[in-house]
Amino acid sequence: MPRASVAVLAALTVSAALGPRGAAAQERDPLPVPDLPGMKTLKADFHLHTVFSDGEVWPTVHVREAWRDGLDVVALTDHVEYHPHGSDVSVDLLRPYALARPLADELGIILIPGVEITRPAPGSPATIPVGSGHFNALFVTDPKALEVPTLQDALRRAHAQGAFVFWNHPGFMGTLEARWHPHVEEAYREGLFQGVELVNGKDFYPAVYPWIVEKALAILCNSDIHQPTPPRAVGGPRPITLVFARTADAEGVREALMARRTAAWLGDDVWGAEEHLRGLWQGALPRLPSALSARRGQRLVVQVQNVSAIPFRLRPRPGPAWVRLEAVTVQARATSLVFRVALEAEVTNLHIGPGHELVVTVPLEITVAP
Amino acid sequence: MPRASVAVLAALTVSAALGPRGAAAQERDPLPVPDLPGMKTLKADFHLHTVFSDGEVWPTVHVREAWRDGLDVVALTDHVEYHPHGSDVSVDLLRPYALARPLADELGIILIPGVEITRPAPGSPATIPVGSGHFNALFVTDPKALEVPTLQDALRRAHAQGAFVFWNHPGFMGTLEARWHPHVEEAYREGLFQGVELVNGKDFYPAVYPWIVEKALAILCNSDIHQPTPPRAVGGPRPITLVFARTADAEGVREALMARRTAAWLGDDVWGAEEHLRGLWQGALPRLPSALSARRGQRLVVQVQNVSAIPFRLRPRPGPAWVRLEAVTVQARATSLVFRVALEAEVTNLHIGPGHELVVTVPLEITVAP
Amino acid sequence: MPRASVAVLAALTVSAALGPRGAAAQERDPLPVPDLPGMKTLKADFHLHTVFSDGEVWPTVHVREAWRDGLDVVALTDHVEYHPHGSDVSVDLLRPYALARPLADELGIILIPGVEITRPAPGSPATIPVGSGHFNALFVTDPKALEVPTLQDALRRAHAQGAFVFWNHPGFMGTLEARWHPHVEEAYREGLFQGVELVNGKDFYPAVYPWIVEKALAILCNSDIHQPTPPRAVGGPRPITLVFARTADAEGVREALMARRTAAWLGDDVWGAEEHLRGLWQGALPRLPSALSARRGQRLVVQVQNVSAIPFRLRPRPGPAWVRLEAVTVQARATSLVFRVALEAEVTNLHIGPGHELVVTVPLEITVAP
Amino acid sequence: MPRASVAVLAALTVSAALGPRGAAAQERDPLPVPDLPGMKTLKADFHLHTVFSDGEVWPTVHVREAWRDGLDVVALTDHVEYHPHGSDVSVDLLRPYALARPLADELGIILIPGVEITRPAPGSPATIPVGSGHFNALFVTDPKALEVPTLQDALRRAHAQGAFVFWNHPGFMGTLEARWHPHVEEAYREGLFQGVELVNGKDFYPAVYPWIVEKALAILCNSDIHQPTPPRAVGGPRPITLVFARTADAEGVREALMARRTAAWLGDDVWGAEEHLRGLWQGALPRLPSALSARRGQRLVVQVQNVSAIPFRLRPRPGPAWVRLEAVTVQARATSLVFRVALEAEVTNLHIGPGHELVVTVPLEITVAP
Repeated sequence: MPRASVAVLAALTVSAALGPRGAAAQERDPLPVPDLPGMKTLKADFHLHTVFSDGEVWPTVHVREAWRDGLDVVALTDHVEYHPHGSDVSVDLLRPYALARPLADELGIILIPGVEITRPAPGSPATIPVGSGHFNALFVTDPKALEVPTLQDALRRAHAQGAFVFWNHPGFMGTLEARWHPHVEEAYREGLFQGVELVNGKDFYPAVYPWIVEKALAILCNSDIHQPTPPRAVGGPRPITLVFARTADAEGVREALMARRTAAWLGDDVWGAEEHLRGLWQGALPRLPSALSARRGQRLVVQVQNVSAIPFRLRPRPGPAWVRLEAVTVQARATSLVFRVALEAEVTNLHIGPGHELVVTVPLEITVAP
Repeated sequence: MPRASVAVLAALTVSAALGPRGAAAQERDPLPVPDLPGMKTLKADFHLHTVFSDGEVWPTVHVREAWRDGLDVVALTDHVEYHPHGSDVSVDLLRPYALARPLADELGIILIPGVEITRPAPGSPATIPVGSGHFNALFVTDPKALEVPTLQDALRRAHAQGAFVFWNHPGFMGTLEARWHPHVEEAYREGLFQGVELVNGKDFYPAVYPWIVEKALAILCNSDIHQPTPPRAVGGPRPITLVFARTADAEGVREALMARRTAAWLGDDVWGAEEHLRGLWQGALPRLPSALSARRGQRLVVQVQNVSAIPFRLRPRPGPAWVRLEAVTVQARATSLVFRVALEAEVTNLHIGPGHELVVTVPLEITVAP
Repeated sequence: MPRASVAVLAALTVSAALGPRGAAAQERDPLPVPDLPGMKTLKADFHLHTVFSDGEVWPTVHVREAWRDGLDVVALTDHVEYHPHGSDVSVDLLRPYALARPLADELGIILIPGVEITRPAPGSPATIPVGSGHFNALFVTDPKALEVPTLQDALRRAHAQGAFVFWNHPGFMGTLEARWHPHVEEAYREGLFQGVELVNGKDFYPAVYPWIVEKALAILCNSDIHQPTPPRAVGGPRPITLVFARTADAEGVREALMARRTAAWLGDDVWGAEEHLRGLWQGALPRLPSALSARRGQRLVVQVQNVSAIPFRLRPRPGPAWVRLEAVTVQARATSLVFRVALEAEVTNLHIGPGHELVVTVPLEITVAP
Repeated sequence: MPRASVAVLAALTVSAALGPRGAAAQERDPLPVPDLPGMKTLKADFHLHTVFSDGEVWPTVHVREAWRDGLDVVALTDHVEYHPHGSDVSVDLLRPYALARPLADELGIILIPGVEITRPAPGSPATIPVGSGHFNALFVTDPKALEVPTLQDALRRAHAQGAFVFWNHPGFMGTLEARWHPHVEEAYREGLFQGVELVNGKDFYPAVYPWIVEKALAILCNSDIHQPTPPRAVGGPRPITLVFARTADAEGVREALMARRTAAWLGDDVWGAEEHLRGLWQGALPRLPSALSARRGQRLVVQVQNVSAIPFRLRPRPGPAWVRLEAVTVQARATSLVFRVALEAEVTNLHIGPGHELVVTVPLEITVAP
């Protein structure tokens, strides 16, 4: 009786699914974000560390926290060369993925294999910032093979394994200014990386932002967390890479990353291509009113329901003199009052390029009953 | 130019819509609750007091707070006979409705005219509890006419005005046991009231619960608040009367009340007729899985997304011995993990009668891949 | 038996102390703020409106909310000349004080009589900003007497009643720049006002800040709220005027106001005289360590406990090159880790003048055990 | 220059003190609990698991979270015999203590060496509950030596190492009833354990409560957590063993445990000896008023400030008929209103024995001014 036997197994093992005894969350914040036409919007974190390098959590912890936080995709990216726990913990970087995969499958989280290549810049004097030689390689199959003397060679081997590679925290620690170093240029010319972290942790790098278009790089926005992630209600927003994928699986993630269909989302702010961000706006406000009528003496009040978890800060563009224009935020997952007749507005937290925000039109036809 | 002139008006008055300068909320919690087939589920509070009797807020405050809290319907029900602020404030009970109506219209809140008839029981000795002579009359048109010597006469006059009348807080203050008093019986026989508060404020009255069916009364669940209502995040859940209305307007509310299509919702608990509560369950979990398959050795994990603001506490009913059965709560507005194969369950917070909870079936077909 | 009779009274009236039935808070946030040597630090809000002018709450609501929010002093300051509720509510401005006083006495809140003089500037064309003719007068005894044709005369009459007068929201609504208008200069020269709101609601007025010292004005920081005040956990910080009073009573408040011993506190920021703010710092961190010792190879970690509700953002001043200097916040009511050896720091949220923050010294003697 | 060299070291290592890059809290909740005369009240968690057995966090994570949560003492108690991560992680149980100790020293956390002895009961058939053979041994020096065939022998070896031993979760998982098993009796007679968990995780064991006095056991209240501990604001209260110690160090903890000077604290409830709990009450309310006076017609209102993080739920004991008596909670870290004249009250959340709560007297002398 195969049915009975699997059931017995289920009965014995269910308590382990959220891990051993303890206080793991049993609820997931759905964190709704609109899909774009023909594409699923996946919420990802591609930069996480475990006890297998210098992190302080077991691989499953990141999967469970990603599920709790409404994420769809995670990559565990331990350091290839840095193993401070090496005397107590295995240094085999295939292990984190293997240990996390069963829980990821159960919870419906897409797990991406990955590592962090962590080098001083090649031939670097002390003046080269610490972070300039850090790159994450996703979809690698043989991490061990990346342990070669030079950064460039490590990147070449990742490339040979078909990896998607991105430059990590170019302005490391928020105290160093991001610069396009010679060794980065060298790797870039050779096509050894395809993306860059515009956001790492709580840090946004303004200097990196122009490179997105100039260098045609995919935008990444990751937590780089080494410890437990506090729940959003306490720890604040978590950096999320939005991935606009044709299919909601690892292959769909890879295709979208290679095609640079990503955006960065940190708290109130989103950075991405205009077409993607316009899609988010349109999907978030499905019932935007298009006409208003008022009797003489009646006030005009517009209610706008935002069904997404992304808020929209509106800065109205100039309209007729008799329209009062004020900045307003359309809060996430709420209905907001918009009291003014905004004909055109910039969405000041949807960034489509340095100094450029998404401009949206709310075409209101105002009629007045006598 | 009528268009211009209304616009100027709008420009001058918008700041007043949320009241004068101050810290009123500009966001509404959508508080999603499923509609039933052919009916809108409206969220109502039919018992509120203002400075026009013994409350401490202006009528508009209740409207604004109802909007913030996701309600659709409110009635301001000041005392007909009790006016402690009478030396400073008008005692005309048509005024609260008139003052609140423009804001209610702007915000899309359905405002119902109402008053509270506040009498000692007729011919009552001191042993008759304070609350037994309190009845709310909705849809009254002439509050002044209710100022007659006896409770019974006041109820008759409300009836004559076409009012929907319900008995308030039968177990007043939570310290007095609810009893079906002789004067209540008298009014009931004469058809002078059609509903009863099963919940008032934070108090649920167990003694009242059997009367709902025995006496064929509409269920009411109201706040009876006299002061500002703290936001839900601080003040906890607000009592809400769910009204299953054919149309989302005052007439629809009246028809549903008269037809007793209501339920009480306080925090985690809902009390109502089985057909209504089953409709809420079905609408809240639109994507309930109906089949599971697992490979031998794999754990069975079910994720359930609840799109409503009502949580569901499940107490599984006995299944095969090899299924582990545990109580679980499907949290509101979240995706929950349900680890066990629940074939049948009682929803322990959806009350369809004293001692009776809604029983639901989740028909799972389990197959095992070899 | 007088004892019995007062007790019966107590039994009958206790439920009214937090007002009629409803959801008023029963807990007060102590909101600890250090006293200065020889002075009590009182937390005040001197600008509040009720239904007696254009507010939407009964006078008692402000008293109860002030108690909940940890305040010690409030003034209800309804408009002398503006009575939009006049057809329903009395316009006697002695009433709000009289109605609120019993509750204030019970809760230990110091209630200050007050009104807002609300005029267009004298002889003003439309170009004079709306707010420039608004002044609060505290300790007035005859509000009716202020209803005279001109602003200057109204201020003179307040002065004659011994009032403490301050200029309200000089940069009204945050959209108009604060300017030292001719009629303000005229009133100032005549000694008709002694203070100014540096903060009103959530707005801080940078243009007003230099006037504090130049014109020797008392700093005021008030809410100007007309509606219920949401609890701090939801509505964010409440503006508070800190009053450094020799006695904790109305007379002590008056003496401190006249002597300009006040500061403004909004959220993280405090603006005041250096001597007062230094006193707050010293009182908040009573156990600041003065010496550290470490063994070679050990890290130096300092824990600092802030016993006050004011956080302190530190910007370290340059030290020896071998000390890592980073900005840090000593959170309110918590123990914080300060990892760096800060010899001298600016407290960037304690403002002692435009462009000047409090500088504090933490004299640490570092010794190293061999 | 030793001074310079340690400083350089400090500069290089400070960022590691809160662990590697990531979102660890930098603030500690002081969680104030009164000391008793001559004794420090230490807040402890003596049951925690790490990746070195079946936990999912690195040892330092528990230390950092304990600091954040206001704890003073922790023991990492990995399983002696159960090592599901054994193929990836060392099984040397001296390692968790060694790895956590430097951070504990920096943060001022008292770290106690410990292990969990995890056996099926000796000679047990399947009917013996899983948990009955689980004992924590604190202050052990040689964990390896406990790997002997029988539970009794393992306990004897712990005893020989001078360990303080307590029985874990006698009602395992909350689903099994606690019973005083024969093998427990055997160990008890031989003096092999001195305490018992009255609370484990969120579970309180009523059946265990009488044993505290009958068997003269120390009360333990521990989390037994294997995963990250969510911050209190999200995860709810953390179980805490209160230790009344003569000195705030490991030796003081050991002496207090052996002398059974402990109490259990979970959320609102505290269980302990009357003398200890009375000390907490007295320390928490230092300014309890002792006399009230009122003028005839004035209401009597008492404000009580609780300076501790423990709330007190009062159930008044019968007083004169003219005093209204209602249950009330004196909230933690707040000032509460107590409207009634409570002469004597039971503190219903301070449990001094099964069915017995602490009785306190508030001796109020009421006088009435004519």
